[in-house]
Amino acid sequence: MKKEFIYKHLVQYYETDKMAISHHSNYIRWMEEARTDFMNQIGWDFVKIEETGVMSPVVSLSCKYKNTTTFSDVVEIHTRVKEISGVRLALEYEMYKQDGTLAFTGTSEHCFVNKEGKIVRVKRDFPELFETLSMLSKDNED
Amino acid sequence: MKKEFIYKHLVQYYETDKMAISHHSNYIRWMEEARTDFMNQIGWDFVKIEETGVMSPVVSLSCKYKNTTTFSDVVEIHTRVKEISGVRLALEYEMYKQDGTLAFTGTSEHCFVNKEGKIVRVKRDFPELFETLSMLSKDNED
Amino acid sequence: MKKEFIYKHLVQYYETDKMAISHHSNYIRWMEEARTDFMNQIGWDFVKIEETGVMSPVVSLSCKYKNTTTFSDVVEIHTRVKEISGVRLALEYEMYKQDGTLAFTGTSEHCFVNKEGKIVRVKRDFPELFETLSMLSKDNED
Amino acid sequence: MKKEFIYKHLVQYYETDKMAISHHSNYIRWMEEARTDFMNQIGWDFVKIEETGVMSPVVSLSCKYKNTTTFSDVVEIHTRVKEISGVRLALEYEMYKQDGTLAFTGTSEHCFVNKEGKIVRVKRDFPELFETLSMLSKDNED
Repeated sequence: MKKEFIYKHLVQYYETDKMAISHHSNYIRWMEEARTDFMNQIGWDFVKIEETGVMSPVVSLSCKYKNTTTFSDVVEIHTRVKEISGVRLALEYEMYKQDGTLAFTGTSEHCFVNKEGKIVRVKRDFPELFETLSMLSKDNED
Repeated sequence: MKKEFIYKHLVQYYETDKMAISHHSNYIRWMEEARTDFMNQIGWDFVKIEETGVMSPVVSLSCKYKNTTTFSDVVEIHTRVKEISGVRLALEYEMYKQDGTLAFTGTSEHCFVNKEGKIVRVKRDFPELFETLSMLSKDNED
Repeated sequence: MKKEFIYKHLVQYYETDKMAISHHSNYIRWMEEARTDFMNQIGWDFVKIEETGVMSPVVSLSCKYKNTTTFSDVVEIHTRVKEISGVRLALEYEMYKQDGTLAFTGTSEHCFVNKEGKIVRVKRDFPELFETLSMLSKDNED
Repeated sequence: MKKEFIYKHLVQYYETDKMAISHHSNYIRWMEEARTDFMNQIGWDFVKIEETGVMSPVVSLSCKYKNTTTFSDVVEIHTRVKEISGVRLALEYEMYKQDGTLAFTGTSEHCFVNKEGKIVRVKRDFPELFETLSMLSKDNED
């Protein structure tokens, strides 16, 4: 089973700053774009999840900026499941420039909450999603 | 009665683009900042309005970019009521640099809708707000 | 010759606001995305233009918000040349939702300046670009 | 000598998302706002630094989201120097809501580069800045 998911982002003019590079805050947004696309690819889009009244806020982030990107670059984002526990999902991302240079690595951690803000146990309440994410996680290397 | 309301915005690094100027899309956001501040100043903050279940989407915008601004500029935004009708509010904005140069002029038009997306008649449903806005409007020059 | 250029934007989570719709400032950014793509399609990408030392700031904008869009909507943006003169380019945009509903119409006006901030006469300095844009302009209907 | 610097950010409507909270990417931008303000407070504003041809890109970030914030919240950001070495500066941030709740903690790491993209040694090339930052660093507790 495929364990790495690829998404491409075309850097926009409005994402550059006066250093003439992509502003560092945009990589956080591209992580979200890649995450949304990843969830679509595994059949669990956020629209469907939010319709059940469940939202998935970010709990933590860590980012390393390795090389700059800029306007009109196509950034290729590789997403993997780092870890899934009963209540938390961790994803990791690598972003590459067209020439193969590594531009960025990052990790995001998420929980799931219901409309009242209470923690949702993925394992119990979304067993199929939990199963899929477990199979994709790095811990579960064949 | 004061008819012009002043708000100051400090241009941030993340608001610049690779031309080393403030990206033009940010002025739309600064109009919103000034509008929020204006509503606070007249005693009708949006938090209070939204608590009644009423939201105020933008219906139209027009903008003229006269001079550039950039990182660390303090932009002084002057807001006035251009027009208030039973269902629509139009505001106009002038943005100045510290040296007094006019950088931007713009207009925004707003309606008011309830949770079901139905148009709210300000004149009927918020008569005090309507009264205040009417007194502030340019049509009502003394 | 084709006179209308189509670009698609997938609305991101970070582009929504607490009304649960796409924040109005993002349409300005999508106009820029469509404009960039349009310039690529006619063979004059901004990277190439900026390499000659010429930049193209926005002079004016006008926007009408007809219907809301939200997270995961695919917005189809139709771009046309409204007018090209010796020194100014005006483009117009229509944005449609997947179901064909018109969500937004807008116009942007641009000039061209060199590194010193001086106006560049497109007709004189970029005659081929001027020729292409003229042929695409609405004034030049067959 | 004061070791903690305080900056306040008023959360804007355009910074919220469809969960009705501040989108997580904005905290990265508020870290930058607080950093800019901190540099001003110690007498080394980025405008002055960039005039010497030196820029300060972000090398890494780490963030923990503890509590949500939303439109019209005043977020109080406390900034401290975590570490300064010959070539790197690490800052840490705590963000509080008006009621004193901790909303966010984060760290950012920066290097300094010249126009050619070469690393600038702060200790050697900006000895006074290095001295100031060293005195402010946590390692240098009295």
